[in-house]
Amino acid sequence: MEPESEIKMDEDELFEKITSGEVSLRKIEKYTDANSAVKLRRKAIEKTSNVSFEYIQNHNIDAEKVTKKNIENMIGAVQIPLGIAGPLKVKGEYADGDYYVPLATTEGALVASVNRGCSVITRSNGADVRIFQDVMTRAPAFKVENVVRAQEFVEWIKKPETLKHMQDKISEITSHGELIDIDPYVLGNTVYLRFSYDTKDAMGMNMVTIATNTLVDLIEDEFGADPISLSGNMCTDKKPAALNSIQGRGKTVVAEIEIPKKVVEDRLKSTPEEMADVNYRKNLLGSARAGSLGYNAHAANVIVATNIACGQDPAHVVEGSNVITTMEVTKYGDLYCSVTLPSLLVGTVGGGTGIGTQKDCLNLLGVAGSGHPPGANAKKMAEILASAVLAGEISLIGAQAAGHLARAHAELGRGSF
Amino acid sequence: MEPESEIKMDEDELFEKITSGEVSLRKIEKYTDANSAVKLRRKAIEKTSNVSFEYIQNHNIDAEKVTKKNIENMIGAVQIPLGIAGPLKVKGEYADGDYYVPLATTEGALVASVNRGCSVITRSNGADVRIFQDVMTRAPAFKVENVVRAQEFVEWIKKPETLKHMQDKISEITSHGELIDIDPYVLGNTVYLRFSYDTKDAMGMNMVTIATNTLVDLIEDEFGADPISLSGNMCTDKKPAALNSIQGRGKTVVAEIEIPKKVVEDRLKSTPEEMADVNYRKNLLGSARAGSLGYNAHAANVIVATNIACGQDPAHVVEGSNVITTMEVTKYGDLYCSVTLPSLLVGTVGGGTGIGTQKDCLNLLGVAGSGHPPGANAKKMAEILASAVLAGEISLIGAQAAGHLARAHAELGRGSF
Amino acid sequence: MEPESEIKMDEDELFEKITSGEVSLRKIEKYTDANSAVKLRRKAIEKTSNVSFEYIQNHNIDAEKVTKKNIENMIGAVQIPLGIAGPLKVKGEYADGDYYVPLATTEGALVASVNRGCSVITRSNGADVRIFQDVMTRAPAFKVENVVRAQEFVEWIKKPETLKHMQDKISEITSHGELIDIDPYVLGNTVYLRFSYDTKDAMGMNMVTIATNTLVDLIEDEFGADPISLSGNMCTDKKPAALNSIQGRGKTVVAEIEIPKKVVEDRLKSTPEEMADVNYRKNLLGSARAGSLGYNAHAANVIVATNIACGQDPAHVVEGSNVITTMEVTKYGDLYCSVTLPSLLVGTVGGGTGIGTQKDCLNLLGVAGSGHPPGANAKKMAEILASAVLAGEISLIGAQAAGHLARAHAELGRGSF
Amino acid sequence: MEPESEIKMDEDELFEKITSGEVSLRKIEKYTDANSAVKLRRKAIEKTSNVSFEYIQNHNIDAEKVTKKNIENMIGAVQIPLGIAGPLKVKGEYADGDYYVPLATTEGALVASVNRGCSVITRSNGADVRIFQDVMTRAPAFKVENVVRAQEFVEWIKKPETLKHMQDKISEITSHGELIDIDPYVLGNTVYLRFSYDTKDAMGMNMVTIATNTLVDLIEDEFGADPISLSGNMCTDKKPAALNSIQGRGKTVVAEIEIPKKVVEDRLKSTPEEMADVNYRKNLLGSARAGSLGYNAHAANVIVATNIACGQDPAHVVEGSNVITTMEVTKYGDLYCSVTLPSLLVGTVGGGTGIGTQKDCLNLLGVAGSGHPPGANAKKMAEILASAVLAGEISLIGAQAAGHLARAHAELGRGSF
Repeated sequence: MEPESEIKMDEDELFEKITSGEVSLRKIEKYTDANSAVKLRRKAIEKTSNVSFEYIQNHNIDAEKVTKKNIENMIGAVQIPLGIAGPLKVKGEYADGDYYVPLATTEGALVASVNRGCSVITRSNGADVRIFQDVMTRAPAFKVENVVRAQEFVEWIKKPETLKHMQDKISEITSHGELIDIDPYVLGNTVYLRFSYDTKDAMGMNMVTIATNTLVDLIEDEFGADPISLSGNMCTDKKPAALNSIQGRGKTVVAEIEIPKKVVEDRLKSTPEEMADVNYRKNLLGSARAGSLGYNAHAANVIVATNIACGQDPAHVVEGSNVITTMEVTKYGDLYCSVTLPSLLVGTVGGGTGIGTQKDCLNLLGVAGSGHPPGANAKKMAEILASAVLAGEISLIGAQAAGHLARAHAELGRGSF
Repeated sequence: MEPESEIKMDEDELFEKITSGEVSLRKIEKYTDANSAVKLRRKAIEKTSNVSFEYIQNHNIDAEKVTKKNIENMIGAVQIPLGIAGPLKVKGEYADGDYYVPLATTEGALVASVNRGCSVITRSNGADVRIFQDVMTRAPAFKVENVVRAQEFVEWIKKPETLKHMQDKISEITSHGELIDIDPYVLGNTVYLRFSYDTKDAMGMNMVTIATNTLVDLIEDEFGADPISLSGNMCTDKKPAALNSIQGRGKTVVAEIEIPKKVVEDRLKSTPEEMADVNYRKNLLGSARAGSLGYNAHAANVIVATNIACGQDPAHVVEGSNVITTMEVTKYGDLYCSVTLPSLLVGTVGGGTGIGTQKDCLNLLGVAGSGHPPGANAKKMAEILASAVLAGEISLIGAQAAGHLARAHAELGRGSF
Repeated sequence: MEPESEIKMDEDELFEKITSGEVSLRKIEKYTDANSAVKLRRKAIEKTSNVSFEYIQNHNIDAEKVTKKNIENMIGAVQIPLGIAGPLKVKGEYADGDYYVPLATTEGALVASVNRGCSVITRSNGADVRIFQDVMTRAPAFKVENVVRAQEFVEWIKKPETLKHMQDKISEITSHGELIDIDPYVLGNTVYLRFSYDTKDAMGMNMVTIATNTLVDLIEDEFGADPISLSGNMCTDKKPAALNSIQGRGKTVVAEIEIPKKVVEDRLKSTPEEMADVNYRKNLLGSARAGSLGYNAHAANVIVATNIACGQDPAHVVEGSNVITTMEVTKYGDLYCSVTLPSLLVGTVGGGTGIGTQKDCLNLLGVAGSGHPPGANAKKMAEILASAVLAGEISLIGAQAAGHLARAHAELGRGSF
Repeated sequence: MEPESEIKMDEDELFEKITSGEVSLRKIEKYTDANSAVKLRRKAIEKTSNVSFEYIQNHNIDAEKVTKKNIENMIGAVQIPLGIAGPLKVKGEYADGDYYVPLATTEGALVASVNRGCSVITRSNGADVRIFQDVMTRAPAFKVENVVRAQEFVEWIKKPETLKHMQDKISEITSHGELIDIDPYVLGNTVYLRFSYDTKDAMGMNMVTIATNTLVDLIEDEFGADPISLSGNMCTDKKPAALNSIQGRGKTVVAEIEIPKKVVEDRLKSTPEEMADVNYRKNLLGSARAGSLGYNAHAANVIVATNIACGQDPAHVVEGSNVITTMEVTKYGDLYCSVTLPSLLVGTVGGGTGIGTQKDCLNLLGVAGSGHPPGANAKKMAEILASAVLAGEISLIGAQAAGHLARAHAELGRGSF
């Protein structure tokens, strides 16, 4: 790993060695500094692939830093337009105030749509939002001799002293994470252990992987089960899975708002009845008929755009999209809307949160770095994002409902001639 | 929409009006040019939110252009580090050669992992890849009076002449897309029509939405069903849904490779047997036990990183992640690996494909703009990305299997003392 | 198979040979007539297992007949209490009139509940019901050399002349079934072909298995794909699968009713609003949260009880239970209820339909044997059963809603003191 | 409920009143004894429906008894042929010995198939089987004012003293069941509480419904949440739901066997390799491609046939069919097979277990009535049934694999000419 002992070459010499294949593309950093390596690699690719890059070289990312933790074989950077939606009034336990939500997207109309939803929420006195669970999971798979042994394994795992023993082990190796629980699942001669951790302000994937690796060693040593894979897909990371939508992963958050009938009419050009009906037939019935785990309109759009803006892992939009949206007419004739996000993964430290533009976005939300107490920043972020998802749902369902209303009116109009 | 008649104000005056609330944040473009508007909005946000942006202002995106089609309320841009994996030898019908795959990510080790997989594939003589279906879908929901009427509706829709009539209608309004088929689904008094289109080199969401809107009007006029929502969630867009993984959405692609035993041993430090076993217990059994629609290790990582690099809609990783990975020991003792992607959405025109850095990435793959014939570029891109997903799976399962092997050896070692 | 040449033994001698193990339990029919075989087998089991049967010997099933087509190793019969619910007014295309629905069950309150629902439906002028699709499926799995070959296979299958060729083949071997369509699904090097047949009045499982076996031979001969299994689980038979709930299997039926507000109040002691709300929170939201494919209250109860009564295969309740129930308040304040059954499997010939008590039940519905035209009886039966499922849903949701109302009133009562 | 005060009429008079509509079909028991009521109702139906029943009147069910607990509107009984499979060697914690499994079915070849599987298992020294969880669930739905209140509700529920308080309440009302745990799930303003009980030898549905009703009252009184429905579909009863397949319902059981290569060859005419491959492509890949929750061949067949024989609720085959079957070649070249049944519901008391023929079947298994200790009989039954499911899987996959092998040989044969 350490390139120090290597002789630094001058750029021309190095470039020649790269293009001749003597120095491989992934090892250029061994022979020069990061910035130069990025440049040489880019130029080598230009030559090999007979292409001229015009834009990717323009960035102010600290190559020295990101090539250590965020990227390999770097050749430049991609730029994504950044817009803001807001102010969005949020009334959570961690986020309490008006926020501008940063969205990095190339999908036209998305920011405008979320912005409209924010305006409706803010005019309706803000979204209430609460976090119901906050655990990051990792589930290694073990093979056992037979079902008798599987039973012994599960019984051992379920002993309170086993959990305590493992918690102690984790507390020895990290002060940033905490083992909360272990759920065993048996399938023939394979046993999956779903470990849940509190990872504070970190999204926590790396942390739980390292911690779980330690526990896998411990299990192998002390119980003797054969560890097949550090992840056995019951985590479940970045795959759509009912397990996550039912049991939760990351933060399980619910945001809601009661929108006065008048606001629905004035701002969304619809009615509570129309919106509830569209949500019912589209988000509930349509999703049910499609065998879906996501009963929402476009939660993924909001999640991935804020994820990209804020240095989150955008692949987590997969489990993030397990969102259920409800809309109901209240007894006062207003519109109750909610979004339930069982598996929202966010962090304010680690991952891409340290890169300049991303840090700007986290600062905009007031959540950069560790919170006080630890975990408070990530929770604040989750509350804001869930409220932004709610804004997106309101706006899109409102637009569909307004379209329906407009058609109905046109219909009436036509009918009168 | 038209800012022409507006008097252009000087920046200071406009800034004052923005911060005083007289000019709303989303209307600044009406009073000045795009670049200035972006700057003023950013500065207003800095003032309101009491934050200083250090990085997001640094970009070379053409604000004039993107604020028209890609973003609203723009305040700058986010930068994502860009790395490359390759060369990746692909043997498809559209992609045939060695490619460098651009990945925009902040997740350390991802590029290195995919790169290792590319190397294994290329040494194993390249991935075979084929596209089995290529349709973009949109499914509006209609309400009908009763089940008798629903039956009439479905019968009408299923008539060959109705399809022909609608195809003619679509060909009148666009030459870029083509209506292929209509699948009706009934649920009580709601009827969903899943329209499938060939959208050539475009991912096609906008195109099919506009086209479907026209058909919804036609249906309302000619049959009289009440259109509730232009999307009834049976499309299914950006939500995990069995419908997509079974029937496909976008491109349905399969990529495969037979890796010689020797390459598995030398490059992946594992054996075909170990890798097949890890894939079996993790990707198949673990996913089954988790109630998952994604039987893979980390397809989402590769899809979202290439999506971001290439100006695709990254929220489409949700249906993109419905990937099934298989690994089998062949009768010759080698390792057969495949990835089946039922719902991969990509395009080489429209969306974010016109932005500078994204266009650089598309150029690297040789797929920028329209293909010859139309659709060929998007298909080529899909073939390359599916092969890159295969690379990612091989590398990660290989790593898990090598870890298992290493443990087993350590075990043996320990046992001998 | 042929017992004719065997010497018939007298019962005592044979019993001795059975208990000594000389004649195995499954071969007794070779040495004596069916009735005697059943008796001797029962007695042998009594001796071996040291148990005395008191009831299973009492039946009037024609052992000679059922041991040829319905059961092996017969030792007697099980009796299930049979009740009736009705009259149930059905307004279908095949069933049009008032019916008594036979339910064989040991679950107390089930018949009473369905009966109450029937009464509500009949008083509300009867259920409208329509069949939207009627196909029985079987999906063999084939292995192919590689993805290139898979593509050729799929292209061959999709040719209209291939379908025609296979249809001709089927029409040669049976006049009772008709090949309708073939859907190919690829997964790596495995290709699944989902064959759909019209099986007229038969549920059709045997017929489609035999027919598909012929086509598998044809495919092996003419295309050369390697048939792995006659059923590749994409049929999908007797397993919960989104494929069936989306694409349908057997009969896809929708039944609906508009219940006047007054009937809801008088007969169900509830209100349309309460019932719609219970259905919404229980059948829709609760099912969504549980990752379910069945959005109903207890459709399975009605399906399995009628299946047992009418000689159907009760294991088909698995896909039968994929039912979505909706309840909505109409603009006139009445209650609209519907049930959508994507995969209801029934037949009036074959299976257990020829056994005495079962035939009695089919006669009660007026559907025993083949219909005119063929298929009409099975369709009539499906329409009646779907309406009975609707009755069950109305009654159970009504009871829950009445319970809620009662609590609410008690609450108010308590509040007034 | 009590008909005692009613004047008993003579049969002719009563029959007249029934057919004239003066006495409704469901109230006949009020005016005469059960046997007579059943007869009169049957005759009335014969008259009304113009049908003659020939078989349903022949039964020896105690009408007096079953009309009180198992059936309403009784008109007779249905007879299902009963066969046996076995001996089946089971090595569980509760079942340890050789058993004959009773199967009530009209599906030809089913008993023979299971019987063959039993023979293979018994020759392979018996199935190992273990129960990993044993809880019956019921999940009422509550509506709360808002998400803040939902949080308070969940926090209250999660307090150890709340669970203790509820456990005490349950122990007051029943000595047959025990409250084990409560899992809260939030969805907007609806909160579902999934109560888990140990119901000993009863399947437990009635018991947990009554117990939960008491707890719902308690919750309404002490916390104030509004109970919408005693079942909120997160139980999940008789609907296919990932929740059950992941978290379990009823008994979670795993049965397994290692079949020597020689036994596979001799008895199944196949090889371990062939069978593992068929299981892989059919039960795993095919099910994955179909979006299934059941990764097995025909578990439902065995479950429903034994359910009917043994007086179980056959609708529970819906969740029962969530079975995952695995087959693997061991390092010694033998075949490892397992079935994992997450949600098998059985009981030896209550339901239909008291009816004569059903009791005969329970006696055959040695599990009639309560076990010692309570629960032991139901557990024994679950172990036997899981092993019978394993037998069914082995036999059917074996047949498919043998078919494949036969084809392959024929192929070779043909090739040699």
